[in-house]
Amino acid sequence: MQDEIFMREALDEAQIAYNLGEVPVGAVVVFQNQIIARAHNQVETLQDATAHAETLCLRLAAQSLANWRLLGCTLYSTLEPCLMCAGSLILSRVQTVVWGAPDPRHGAGGSLMNVFINHPIHQVEVRQGILREQSADLLKKFFQERRKCKISLTS
Amino acid sequence: MQDEIFMREALDEAQIAYNLGEVPVGAVVVFQNQIIARAHNQVETLQDATAHAETLCLRLAAQSLANWRLLGCTLYSTLEPCLMCAGSLILSRVQTVVWGAPDPRHGAGGSLMNVFINHPIHQVEVRQGILREQSADLLKKFFQERRKCKISLTS
Repeated sequence: MQDEIFMREALDEAQIAYNLGEVPVGAVVVFQNQIIARAHNQVETLQDATAHAETLCLRLAAQSLANWRLLGCTLYSTLEPCLMCAGSLILSRVQTVVWGAPDPRHGAGGSLMNVFINHPIHQVEVRQGILREQSADLLKKFFQERRKCKISLTS
Repeated sequence: MQDEIFMREALDEAQIAYNLGEVPVGAVVVFQNQIIARAHNQVETLQDATAHAETLCLRLAAQSLANWRLLGCTLYSTLEPCLMCAGSLILSRVQTVVWGAPDPRHGAGGSLMNVFINHPIHQVEVRQGILREQSADLLKKFFQERRKCKISLTS
């Protein structure tokens, strides 16, 4: 139930990304039951390949705590983290990551590979599938519209 | 020879990190034979776990080209990239990564794992071992001094 409440906040962030024409992924970081950071994907807006929702959110959470070690924090993301974001989660010493939809193309939490299992530096706990349908539906809608747009431009 | 010239510039950045008390890793991004970005590790200074030399350097290079796709770019790093930095390199569509010393604890280019081989999104070319000794020596010196410092504090 708690997971769903925070994932809805991450979904709100994903909706902001969608409205901006960004791949709709959102994330929040929770510490002691409070949201301390929220972010959405901004790769195109910032022209920064590293501006994924999760990595941006971890950076904002570190600013909020004035500490790069996010001990006891949980990151909620609407999408399974990619390699870079999974690496950021491990480096940040996040306690738990919770995601919604799997990412078959980029997912580093079991889809493409699984970097969380037996990592020698830090063990991040994983929960997945929270509001999976809602997260996946928003992504599907985004990519369907992009395809339609491309077809109408080329026809 | 070209590789050594640019790796010396990355080593200069690593030296700056060393002088600041940061783990001494440096990086430069080269495009059309010109350095377009340079960075050193700033995790402690910025209190940002994602502020590794390589990832910072990719972000600066994208700013420099006003494009997150770093096509045709080469990143030189004094150390084998970690999982996050390897992910950033793939996401940035960098053509080539060249590193100095291997990183047995964190290296995602063959030491801990190898994420560059057969990646389905983008293939990054890899060269390694350029000025390996100089890079490794600076890191060794840094960690030896930190250990000495800890011993004197606890004795």
